[in-house]
Amino acid sequence: MKSPQRNSLPLSKFAMHTITTKPWPLERAIDEFARVGFGGISIWRDTFEGRDLTKVRTQVRQAGLKGVSLVRGGFFAHADKAKRREALDENRRCIDEAQSLDLPAVVLVCGADPEISLAESREIIQESLESLVPDAQAAGVRLGIEPLHPMYADTRSAVNTLGQSNDIAMAVNKASGIMSIGSVVDVYHLWWDDALPAEIDRAGEEGILQAFHVCDWRVPTRDFLWDRGLMGEGCIDIPGIRAQVEDAGFDGLIEVEIFSHEYWKLDQNLWLEKIARACRENV
Amino acid sequence: MKSPQRNSLPLSKFAMHTITTKPWPLERAIDEFARVGFGGISIWRDTFEGRDLTKVRTQVRQAGLKGVSLVRGGFFAHADKAKRREALDENRRCIDEAQSLDLPAVVLVCGADPEISLAESREIIQESLESLVPDAQAAGVRLGIEPLHPMYADTRSAVNTLGQSNDIAMAVNKASGIMSIGSVVDVYHLWWDDALPAEIDRAGEEGILQAFHVCDWRVPTRDFLWDRGLMGEGCIDIPGIRAQVEDAGFDGLIEVEIFSHEYWKLDQNLWLEKIARACRENV
Repeated sequence: MKSPQRNSLPLSKFAMHTITTKPWPLERAIDEFARVGFGGISIWRDTFEGRDLTKVRTQVRQAGLKGVSLVRGGFFAHADKAKRREALDENRRCIDEAQSLDLPAVVLVCGADPEISLAESREIIQESLESLVPDAQAAGVRLGIEPLHPMYADTRSAVNTLGQSNDIAMAVNKASGIMSIGSVVDVYHLWWDDALPAEIDRAGEEGILQAFHVCDWRVPTRDFLWDRGLMGEGCIDIPGIRAQVEDAGFDGLIEVEIFSHEYWKLDQNLWLEKIARACRENV
Repeated sequence: MKSPQRNSLPLSKFAMHTITTKPWPLERAIDEFARVGFGGISIWRDTFEGRDLTKVRTQVRQAGLKGVSLVRGGFFAHADKAKRREALDENRRCIDEAQSLDLPAVVLVCGADPEISLAESREIIQESLESLVPDAQAAGVRLGIEPLHPMYADTRSAVNTLGQSNDIAMAVNKASGIMSIGSVVDVYHLWWDDALPAEIDRAGEEGILQAFHVCDWRVPTRDFLWDRGLMGEGCIDIPGIRAQVEDAGFDGLIEVEIFSHEYWKLDQNLWLEKIARACRENV
């Protein structure tokens, strides 16, 4: 059951993830998002490979879009120590790129390695984040742990609840004395969790409620990765979760992140219009 | 990472779910399970449709197999009240069938309705179980709540953690004063949950640790329903979870429940030999 929509937000309160309109090159995406009236953009790394980051940053600014996140860093959890070091290097590159692009945050998919337990993976994730705090602080970039749905606990993330994400973020921030780490709430990953409202409150109280991602859970969902739904067409109570994050103090842009082979086949201008309507009506 | 196997259990400590060798009719499955040396059987409803239940019960007994569970009742959670009543009637039929087949328990997949919240679905599930206690008691049949993985929270089950299952079972048992309801631990659904060890202990202490199901989580898993793995070929620490349930006092037969379009294509005798080896080596 969906909660009634608190109020319809203007598009300027939403940021688009570039992957949501995957067929478009970055330059086209920036122009189209701005033209339709979105307020911001989160930029996936594949879209700026080989680009001049200064030009990208300038285009984003001139389009009037607010940069929200670089997507994505992480994948810290490896049984093999050399791979852990490589992951740290890769994440330092993410932090540099975010700084160059004037993006205030990097979203982290923290990884999991079936060769070790999920608890051990979470320890490695926490240690890795501790190592990255000085880099993040120097760059003025925040790192956001995105807990992933338990169906991704095999290889993508050992952080599967907002409670785990909050625990790690708070431990790292406490150890460093700096608020470098936050939690990212994505409705797709967390909607099923009965502890979600309490953990949203906790993240708000602790000042670590960093980002809010929306899409929907299709009934049925036909693919583990590429079948996310448009807001309103699935079973997630998005207006209810939006009210919770707002009540917990979140006032950033709401990010639209939809992976969908089905929707990527559409004319992407038509798709963007559908998204704009869903943002106004179903969030 | 897998825990070391505590000790190799004989096949007589395992029960096969008929769906694991889905291509075989029930009579063949009973004979083959007994011939290979399994100790018990859990019988899916579709396999005895149109059969004389007395004959089935006799065949199971003469084969030397212990009946474990009837699979499956449940699907209580409906926004529509008429559908809730129909579900209760259907579950009473399950209880009758279990009694006729001399099966001591019915496994429940409790349902979820996207039209209502998961919390409301759980309330309906609890009320439904309260209604069924007298029937279960009269038949001498126990009802086992099987929490399902959160990827099934849209339509299959609003009970997605052992904590939720334990809460409901204990509430219903307390209200009735009868220990009619238990929890079913299936490694496939629960392996990712950091609260699992504590909730297994709690279920043991409360006397509601009713059943233990094994299979494995394939990496990658290619289908939401029909791609379960054989024990040892996935990422679940099955020996570790087995040690937890044993330490919590579970001493029933361990049930092998694998849905796999891939394995159902094999010669089912060859498949049964693979399962027997995996039971000895990887549980």
